Amino acid sequence: MNGAQALLRTLVDAGVDVCFANPGTSEMHFVAALDDVPGMRGVLALFEGVVTGAADGYARMTDRPAATLLHLGPGLANGLANLHNARRARTPVVNVIGDHALSHKRFDAPLESDIDALTGWTEGWRRTCVDPARIGTDAADAVAAATAGGIANLVLPADVSWGPDGVPASPVSPPAKSTVDDSVPAAVAGVLRSGESTVLLLGSGTTRERGLRAASRIAAATGARLFAETFPARIERGAGLPAVDRLGYLAEQVQWQLTDVRHLVLVGAKSPVSFFAYPGKPSDLVPPGCRTHTLAEVGDDAVDALERLADLVADGVEPVLQQPSRPTLPSGDLTPQNWTEVIGALLPDGAIISDEANTSGVLIPTATAGAPRHDVLTLTGGAIGQGLPVAVGAAIACPDRPVICLQSDGSAMYTISALWTMARENLNVTTVILDNRAYAILRMELTRVGAESAGPRARALLDLANPDLDFAAIAEGMGVPATRARTAEELAEQFSRALAEPGPHLIDAHVPSLI
Amino acid sequence: MNGAQALLRTLVDAGVDVCFANPGTSEMHFVAALDDVPGMRGVLALFEGVVTGAADGYARMTDRPAATLLHLGPGLANGLANLHNARRARTPVVNVIGDHALSHKRFDAPLESDIDALTGWTEGWRRTCVDPARIGTDAADAVAAATAGGIANLVLPADVSWGPDGVPASPVSPPAKSTVDDSVPAAVAGVLRSGESTVLLLGSGTTRERGLRAASRIAAATGARLFAETFPARIERGAGLPAVDRLGYLAEQVQWQLTDVRHLVLVGAKSPVSFFAYPGKPSDLVPPGCRTHTLAEVGDDAVDALERLADLVADGVEPVLQQPSRPTLPSGDLTPQNWTEVIGALLPDGAIISDEANTSGVLIPTATAGAPRHDVLTLTGGAIGQGLPVAVGAAIACPDRPVICLQSDGSAMYTISALWTMARENLNVTTVILDNRAYAILRMELTRVGAESAGPRARALLDLANPDLDFAAIAEGMGVPATRARTAEELAEQFSRALAEPGPHLIDAHVPSLI
Repeated sequence: MNGAQALLRTLVDAGVDVCFANPGTSEMHFVAALDDVPGMRGVLALFEGVVTGAADGYARMTDRPAATLLHLGPGLANGLANLHNARRARTPVVNVIGDHALSHKRFDAPLESDIDALTGWTEGWRRTCVDPARIGTDAADAVAAATAGGIANLVLPADVSWGPDGVPASPVSPPAKSTVDDSVPAAVAGVLRSGESTVLLLGSGTTRERGLRAASRIAAATGARLFAETFPARIERGAGLPAVDRLGYLAEQVQWQLTDVRHLVLVGAKSPVSFFAYPGKPSDLVPPGCRTHTLAEVGDDAVDALERLADLVADGVEPVLQQPSRPTLPSGDLTPQNWTEVIGALLPDGAIISDEANTSGVLIPTATAGAPRHDVLTLTGGAIGQGLPVAVGAAIACPDRPVICLQSDGSAMYTISALWTMARENLNVTTVILDNRAYAILRMELTRVGAESAGPRARALLDLANPDLDFAAIAEGMGVPATRARTAEELAEQFSRALAEPGPHLIDAHVPSLI
Repeated sequence: MNGAQALLRTLVDAGVDVCFANPGTSEMHFVAALDDVPGMRGVLALFEGVVTGAADGYARMTDRPAATLLHLGPGLANGLANLHNARRARTPVVNVIGDHALSHKRFDAPLESDIDALTGWTEGWRRTCVDPARIGTDAADAVAAATAGGIANLVLPADVSWGPDGVPASPVSPPAKSTVDDSVPAAVAGVLRSGESTVLLLGSGTTRERGLRAASRIAAATGARLFAETFPARIERGAGLPAVDRLGYLAEQVQWQLTDVRHLVLVGAKSPVSFFAYPGKPSDLVPPGCRTHTLAEVGDDAVDALERLADLVADGVEPVLQQPSRPTLPSGDLTPQNWTEVIGALLPDGAIISDEANTSGVLIPTATAGAPRHDVLTLTGGAIGQGLPVAVGAAIACPDRPVICLQSDGSAMYTISALWTMARENLNVTTVILDNRAYAILRMELTRVGAESAGPRARALLDLANPDLDFAAIAEGMGVPATRARTAEELAEQFSRALAEPGPHLIDAHVPSLI
């Protein structure tokens, strides 16, 4: 058994059975081992940003890491932006980063680079394999580190991969999440009983059913209000679940949402800050006079803390559940509002929404609030180009659930080749491109940052027209059946048809810009 | 004048008058300043890998840096792979990397990351602007550092960009290249006069007319043979110039090329090493018994050293110039050979070839050797996805010259949105996609690394079929007129027509895999 085979054996035994890959020469023994070691599904992507984004989407839905296979420093570099989003999502990912043979590195061959600088950027676990005899231990440790909630980077030199006498290892248990001390829920219970205006901000891991139900009981019993973080990794919502609004993207929205709040309780969430800085405006969005309390730090077992708090303040109180409710199907030319009503009216049961609709999607949460139960995966780190790859990963993770990718046009182009992987793997992903021919968010931001003097040169850099992108042609070119919608009726008909047919589809929806 | 305006003013005054850009919110004041400060052309790309690759191609043709505009750490991350290629090409590039306001960084907003880790990876100059009063000095220093032959990274926090009282600065002279001591050409002259088998390996900067003529005189006078490095940043060639073969990509080729060589003279080149390591094969490609001599280190004024050496050993000797010669136009289904004959037969005078044809292109140098004079820009760092962006930059640099992008299919998908920028800027780029539906090089490498056991799972990761990519549809979707060629006659007709019409064109050439 060579090093690569021992590595694969260990990954599979540890429950890592999908590898999103874009390999090169230095990874050829790993690739060959896929036929020697049963149980690992290799999924080819045509760009590493798709590889890493898909691993993120997969793990958000399974709570287990996928592996990635990346080609030296440049391959990792191409995958970094979506690893940034995964880091912010606290998603488990195991990167296998092929490198030159250890014996080859001193020659500074063209693809040589400082991989450690890049793995350092991910703020994750990292180790370089140096011996096939220890490769199993390395891999088991990587899976455990990732499972604890982060990115694990395993650098695999080619000669360790092809070296003999590889030794697989048994899975290693990841460290358990920290449980908060009893004194903490007790103290927060005291805050909630004060009767003063209180908000619970729900962070990482608490926006799924168990956490939402506990939070809703607390809210029902005490009058506290609930918000989820602006960009949750995964939020469960829809009819039958407690409904929780997310904090807004714009500082002004958050200031409005937190008006007169006296106590902000962080539940595995970070204190709210402005996404960007703006001249003369505060970065810290906790209102003046508001005290912040931490029920659970990011990384703690926040759901457990919430449930214990609920037992203290809401004994016997039931959560408030969202009633089924759908918009009626709209008609007429597409608008920033009516396209969301089409989605809300037709969203299938059990859908997974990969949401990178950006400015076009501001009304989506409202339009889908009472739709059948579904998951939403959001742009956690702000590095655009996440939506399509995350949809790939979610569809691999959950082959029996419909995946809906709501994708703004500008962001789509970053990782557009994800469409090809959807076609190759015949994934049930319906992509709706919100095609407003602009980086619309930047038009808004240009004004918000006070750069009002913008003239034609500036505007040209925010404009995706001239020429218009024809996403239907691009999708067909990658093997994804595609249509174009200009009216709500067309969108509804095309969306229904796409959902009814297996495999991927794309709808290029000509939705005018909100701004 | 705010910081951004002072920065732009300084860049333009220093001769940096093109900015390839993919901006975000933190760059909005820089974008707005494009209308306030005349003289800077902003060129939008839809992905940062296009931005940085275009800056590389631009500078290879102008010997002056372009600026890039990148959005925080993730935007820089997306551009790193082509910066790796630029680093290996020793191309001057000035990266302007927008960052959060200095006042905002401590809040760890979603897009916050360790930008220094990424700029460190580029091995280039780097500085963070902290004061609008010093921003001009920062920018002038950056241009000088880049012009000396490398990547300069200027991190621009948003509050320094929008801050008042920006002060532009005058250009700073870059350090001159080191001139080699007279003793060095004298010693190499002694080697050349020994009569023993000698090769001059021509590196960075010596593969243009002046260097080639000097090298050819030396070869004609002494019997030394000439090779260029495997992947030169830019090589001038064709009828009327000395012809110099490049070292091969495969170690076996290089070993054959250097058989029985006793002296290897490095002329601004690194000693040849294998691109990858292979089990049981050497990484160092200098043959046993061959002595290595350095006429000029990488970064020295190697052309000057060559000319002084020529004056010592080839006084009065003329260079040997390539005679005009073209293949005849072939016919029949496209093959790995006949497509190159079409290009060789029809290559227009003064063409710039951006060559990322990879395995499909092994016969291109032969087929174009006697074509009219042209430049070839190659994949210097091995990070694929360079060809299309470099073509963009070369076309911006040289609007009066035809740019030919010879682009393999797998690599094309990394930065495919470069086609849109070609359309928007109406660039005279004719892209020929070598469409063999495979990562063909990896099929070869899978065997070469000794991973012969490869089965269907492995092969699926090297295969770009199922579904086939339709590059013509993808190109049309991005606004580039496109055709498909299956025969040599079709390719010749389409290539001629594309060259005759202004603006970009793409030909999806169905060339079967060599392997």
